[in-house]
Amino acid sequence: MNDNLSADRPTFVTHLECSLTGECYAAEQLYNLSRAGRPLLVRYDLDAVRAAVPREALAARATDLWRWRELLPVRHTRNVVSLGEIETPLIPIPGSSGAPTVWVKDEGRLPTGSFKARGLVMAVAMAKELGVTRIAMPTNGNAGAALAAYATRVGIETIVFCPDDTPEVNVREIAAQGARVWRVNGLIDDCGAIVGKGAAEGRWFDFSTLKEPYRIEGKKTMGLELAAQLGWRLPKAIFYPTGGGTGLIGMWKAFEELERLGWIGPERPRMFAVQAAGCAPIVRAFEAGEEHAERWEDAHTIAAGIRVPRAVGDFLILRAVRESGGRAVAVGDPAIVKAVDDCARRDGLLLCPEGGATLAAYRQALRDRLVDEDEEVVLFNCATGLKYPLPAADQRLDRHGAIDFDVL
Amino acid sequence: MNDNLSADRPTFVTHLECSLTGECYAAEQLYNLSRAGRPLLVRYDLDAVRAAVPREALAARATDLWRWRELLPVRHTRNVVSLGEIETPLIPIPGSSGAPTVWVKDEGRLPTGSFKARGLVMAVAMAKELGVTRIAMPTNGNAGAALAAYATRVGIETIVFCPDDTPEVNVREIAAQGARVWRVNGLIDDCGAIVGKGAAEGRWFDFSTLKEPYRIEGKKTMGLELAAQLGWRLPKAIFYPTGGGTGLIGMWKAFEELERLGWIGPERPRMFAVQAAGCAPIVRAFEAGEEHAERWEDAHTIAAGIRVPRAVGDFLILRAVRESGGRAVAVGDPAIVKAVDDCARRDGLLLCPEGGATLAAYRQALRDRLVDEDEEVVLFNCATGLKYPLPAADQRLDRHGAIDFDVL
Ligand SMILES: Cc1ncc(COP(=O)(O)O)c(C=O)c1O
Ligand SMILES: Cc1ncc(COP(=O)(O)O)c(C=O)c1O
Repeated sequence: MNDNLSADRPTFVTHLECSLTGECYAAEQLYNLSRAGRPLLVRYDLDAVRAAVPREALAARATDLWRWRELLPVRHTRNVVSLGEIETPLIPIPGSSGAPTVWVKDEGRLPTGSFKARGLVMAVAMAKELGVTRIAMPTNGNAGAALAAYATRVGIETIVFCPDDTPEVNVREIAAQGARVWRVNGLIDDCGAIVGKGAAEGRWFDFSTLKEPYRIEGKKTMGLELAAQLGWRLPKAIFYPTGGGTGLIGMWKAFEELERLGWIGPERPRMFAVQAAGCAPIVRAFEAGEEHAERWEDAHTIAAGIRVPRAVGDFLILRAVRESGGRAVAVGDPAIVKAVDDCARRDGLLLCPEGGATLAAYRQALRDRLVDEDEEVVLFNCATGLKYPLPAADQRLDRHGAIDFDVL
Repeated sequence: MNDNLSADRPTFVTHLECSLTGECYAAEQLYNLSRAGRPLLVRYDLDAVRAAVPREALAARATDLWRWRELLPVRHTRNVVSLGEIETPLIPIPGSSGAPTVWVKDEGRLPTGSFKARGLVMAVAMAKELGVTRIAMPTNGNAGAALAAYATRVGIETIVFCPDDTPEVNVREIAAQGARVWRVNGLIDDCGAIVGKGAAEGRWFDFSTLKEPYRIEGKKTMGLELAAQLGWRLPKAIFYPTGGGTGLIGMWKAFEELERLGWIGPERPRMFAVQAAGCAPIVRAFEAGEEHAERWEDAHTIAAGIRVPRAVGDFLILRAVRESGGRAVAVGDPAIVKAVDDCARRDGLLLCPEGGATLAAYRQALRDRLVDEDEEVVLFNCATGLKYPLPAADQRLDRHGAIDFDVL
């Protein structure tokens, strides 16, 4: 039986570090941003990890997220929380990609239907470990749902703020799972301002993306998992739907840690940060050669998860994309809708709009010769397509009438 | 890397057998019901399987559904189809069950968000193997979604009929994934009559529950998987939301095959067939000591997946329940709603109504002393709770107004 949740395993955390200045912070304390106002990154004694666990030992464990315990920050096994964080499958989509080695990593299979579970399971476990009792968060929906589920499970109180037009199912899911949730007339950073204000007054702990150092450690497991799934190789390119960018930054960190462990070589995938044309601050900064991204005004796109006008980790996203030889690319909503439709109709796989954006971006990159069709490519579908509005289907049949089988 | 989808592995099918009369049918032909009008069951040369693969060899494979290839009917690897049929997690729900060893098997993580993927991945692979080009099916929603996805993936045409009030998301999902779908003014057996009529005219192949022999082989993997997950033991009781009953019959068949392989002993879980009070034909027949169940008139329940007034495999369900020392039990819609709510609020796990029914039935069985609270029990949550209507959550906050943090 899977003992990833019950076995005592050592932690190798040495300290935390400011992602901008490199300043050190002691582990096992509660933090939001660094003194420089930037995200903190968790650092490990990777030499000790290498001596303690060969990669084959991890490969032999059950494949869920907690298999990576030695590369994660939780110290006490009693603080591990779980709703079944399975390894997500890689699914080829030859029909809609036109290529045999384009895989969708289907993150919609995680608890609460999105990859936000990876970040939040870790952040909540650490909040428990560090004695937090009340958390607030701004969210486009999926992160709030994951927070509500895990926080409820460990008995932490949660208050969530989301933009007005967050998909209904997300808001209801958050409430059903025991959080208090408000719709706010604004965007995610407007919600973030409310959370920040309350945190400054000491009313709750601020769980905004990257303002809390452990979500990224959870998201990092996407990179660890990918390496293990591919037999300790990485794909040639990764297309990631980029809002706050935690996942992209997390994977980049994972690859570095894996190389320092000697578990993979120096090769890296080209990282494609995918945004929507109606909200593309990272793309604009990338193209302008800037290190930071300005707020995108009047953001709009059907891909709510990547409608993030301003990202506190902007420079980390841009750095990873550039170091990898990748790009930040924008795709329009019509191309997103078409990609979702094609993938469902040709490959039987229902993507979320953000996942559709990565397929649209892949197609565009293929046309622009930024990728070859025989390269191994991974597209992240970060949530189940079932959470999003689907086109109506209204055909009706009267069973008491005469059925014309020729026209069915 | 996972080679379950690509490795050539032998099939051990010997023949098919009428579940009522035992009459034999040659393998590798297309069948619906037996000459006696009953479901056909696939039989294997289990001695040969035992000689060919030790259980440790299977345990060492990647954990998805296709690991069980030697106990499945597909002959040619080229006919294997997949959308990532992962092993579903077992999640404890101490908060809402009040017991430490009650696990939810969360089948909502499978492709298209329900356990119907297990049955349909197999049935579609076999349809491909046997040259079917057009399939029709009556469905309460989830089976049609799974059929559409897999059939689309292998290029088989699909026509689906569902009751009027099938959850909207299911109907849209079916259409999005390339099937033609109709709502019919009736229940699932009325839809089945239309499918049967078209099949009789040679317009399509009839994929109704148990009228096609391979779905049950796919559903059987729930039993195989459970045994492997628990280290080749079985739980003391299983609560299964029973409509057509394929899963219950399939698990029962799996346990028998596992014992004949020598991979488990003779102990069996008590099987609880859970139905809704508004549609409980199996419960009525169980209590009356009948071998078959009459149609339930005016069926109604919010748990659409188990709103099945008449099941062609009724006698197989009843037989398994009785042989196991279990029961058929009914729960009311209010108890279902309360169970879903409690599990989300206390354990952070959102069940589908049918999954809620199993928790409600467990609680009832605990009160009736049919189970002890220290027994290992598995409840099947057969679909993601995200497919079903959730209670409204309408709190709004004006970010331009004064925010009273004390009342948030
Ligand atoms: C479905 C989906 N995709 C992508 C993203 C963006 O994730 P990140 O913040 O890691 O960039 C989100 C975030 O809400 C999301 O919900
Ligand atoms: C969510 C859910 N639970 C349970 C069932 C009943 O399954 P079975 O036909 O195996 O009894 C169904 C069937 O539609 C379903 O969709």
